[in-house]
Amino acid sequence: MYDEEPGMPGALMAAEIAEQPDTLAGLLAARGELEDAARRIAAARPRFVLIAARGTSDHAALYAKYVVEIRRQLPAGLASPSSFTLYGAAPDLTDVLFLAISQSGRSPDLVESMAVARACGAVTVAVTNSPDSPLALAAEISVDIRAGVERAVAATKTYTAQLLALLLLLDGDSAVHDAARLPEAAARTLAGNGTEQIAAAAARFRHVDRIVVSGRGYSYPTAREGALKLMETSYLSAQAFSGADLLHGPLAMIDGSVPVIAMTSPGRSGAAMKPVLDRLTEVGAEVLPVGPARGLPVAAAGLPEHLVPIVEIMPLQLLALQLAVARGLDPDAPRGLSKITQTR
Amino acid sequence: MYDEEPGMPGALMAAEIAEQPDTLAGLLAARGELEDAARRIAAARPRFVLIAARGTSDHAALYAKYVVEIRRQLPAGLASPSSFTLYGAAPDLTDVLFLAISQSGRSPDLVESMAVARACGAVTVAVTNSPDSPLALAAEISVDIRAGVERAVAATKTYTAQLLALLLLLDGDSAVHDAARLPEAAARTLAGNGTEQIAAAAARFRHVDRIVVSGRGYSYPTAREGALKLMETSYLSAQAFSGADLLHGPLAMIDGSVPVIAMTSPGRSGAAMKPVLDRLTEVGAEVLPVGPARGLPVAAAGLPEHLVPIVEIMPLQLLALQLAVARGLDPDAPRGLSKITQTR
Repeated sequence: MYDEEPGMPGALMAAEIAEQPDTLAGLLAARGELEDAARRIAAARPRFVLIAARGTSDHAALYAKYVVEIRRQLPAGLASPSSFTLYGAAPDLTDVLFLAISQSGRSPDLVESMAVARACGAVTVAVTNSPDSPLALAAEISVDIRAGVERAVAATKTYTAQLLALLLLLDGDSAVHDAARLPEAAARTLAGNGTEQIAAAAARFRHVDRIVVSGRGYSYPTAREGALKLMETSYLSAQAFSGADLLHGPLAMIDGSVPVIAMTSPGRSGAAMKPVLDRLTEVGAEVLPVGPARGLPVAAAGLPEHLVPIVEIMPLQLLALQLAVARGLDPDAPRGLSKITQTR
Repeated sequence: MYDEEPGMPGALMAAEIAEQPDTLAGLLAARGELEDAARRIAAARPRFVLIAARGTSDHAALYAKYVVEIRRQLPAGLASPSSFTLYGAAPDLTDVLFLAISQSGRSPDLVESMAVARACGAVTVAVTNSPDSPLALAAEISVDIRAGVERAVAATKTYTAQLLALLLLLDGDSAVHDAARLPEAAARTLAGNGTEQIAAAAARFRHVDRIVVSGRGYSYPTAREGALKLMETSYLSAQAFSGADLLHGPLAMIDGSVPVIAMTSPGRSGAAMKPVLDRLTEVGAEVLPVGPARGLPVAAAGLPEHLVPIVEIMPLQLLALQLAVARGLDPDAPRGLSKITQTR
């Protein structure tokens, strides 16, 4: 673990990364609100699910989409807020569950999309870290991810709390039993990625300005979120691709100068990365695996595959933090960003 | 226009870019099949639309999602093929229109997704350039984009033909009248981006290895496709962001060394880029606008906004071509790629 002194660059982000076993345990202990919301959603019997979010929360939305499609066997899509806000779409949303995810609950385009979705007949749910926010108040059902105040601009603990909240909301009772293992798996994952190990990975990438993060299935949202952390804190041009999409074009730009971080935790998503890793080897790419012990390890033993994303992002959070510090940057105060982003 | 001799680097791609006014006119002239398919779709009265694709076709899918949401007022989502192929999802797809888009019609994951969707009760439609392909044969309704053989690895004329086919398929009769203007708008856009002008833009970016392309609403698919062309042909780390998402984090990595191509054609999407352009100016980014005459012009006069994507990609195709040639590469034969990508 990275143990910077308070006030040093990255101290806030380091502290919030380290809090994650506790925030996950806290949300599990207070899961009554989520279970109640899950019952209300089930009673509405939605036939389609639309999920709206921006930034880090959009990666939580992508995770939720896989949970809905695979665990609930319902068709799902990510909403394009601009269809509502720029073009005034007012589709018939009868039988649709409309879920909006936002840490702050204050992005005007999401608040407006939520209002339109509700007026168009959707069952509306807000998942926020701010139960008094405009987004939470605009929804029929509001759930609080209970992550506590997040002070670093780069979201970490709110992301993993969003994933757990969405799992409990959408996967029903079976999720609770397995989710009880998450706080310990999170603690072991953080402990398994010690200061020296992450510093070595950060040193490898210190002078790199382009990087690719790739994963498939449940690990694709992790690849997207990991890339965003590297952009926000270390100013890398970090691109995320599903392993399949990577082979449909972007592979051309990869050579020995563009390292690839590959999500290869056990399970079907990791197995599906095998042909991608083979092609990357052929083109001479340098690959850092996240999952296996020989890369940045993930303590996934005993976790069903759909819970792994909640812990496998943590080595990437630590890497983004230490890489920023190694490059002389302050990951707590990325240039050009503020904690609440207002877009219309 | 770029007028390389046959056999020179980029000659195939240059020829196929130049063919686009004719491929669009040809598809309009033979639109009977599309109108028939549109009638069958309307008769099925779908309530939700799922669209599956990879690579360039995935950007056509994103365009189709906006058309469905805004023009047909139906909720829509992009399918994640891995939910079907890796995780065996078999959701209830009653009342769902499942649309798969592929130039070759041969990607195994799309063919398998199509079969599952059909078995799960969806109305299935394949949009391909290969009416005898496995994907076309697996669908209940198949439409041919009639773009002719595409020989360059980087797709150009099949992309714009896909957009037009999807418009005619999904937007009904009102599309036909406006679409008649497209061949001329395409010809004027190509003529407006002459060799000298594109060569000047290519010279500006010749030594760049990171670039961002941004657009909102209907122009966001264009930003995605433009970035892919730059990756495939010129090996740039080209990242596409919706203008809104750009402000939620990725903005941090942009400074004077990372140029931004901004889609700013007239209409609501271009207007919504204004606050994004203001922020980019504040952080010192170099911006190349696509749309206005002072950047790379788009002959959009008289076209409704939802038709503009069919022509506004063309300056980016020309830029990707000439930039690759300026960098000593052959855009017709990108390293690591072949014309048909097989992913599972």
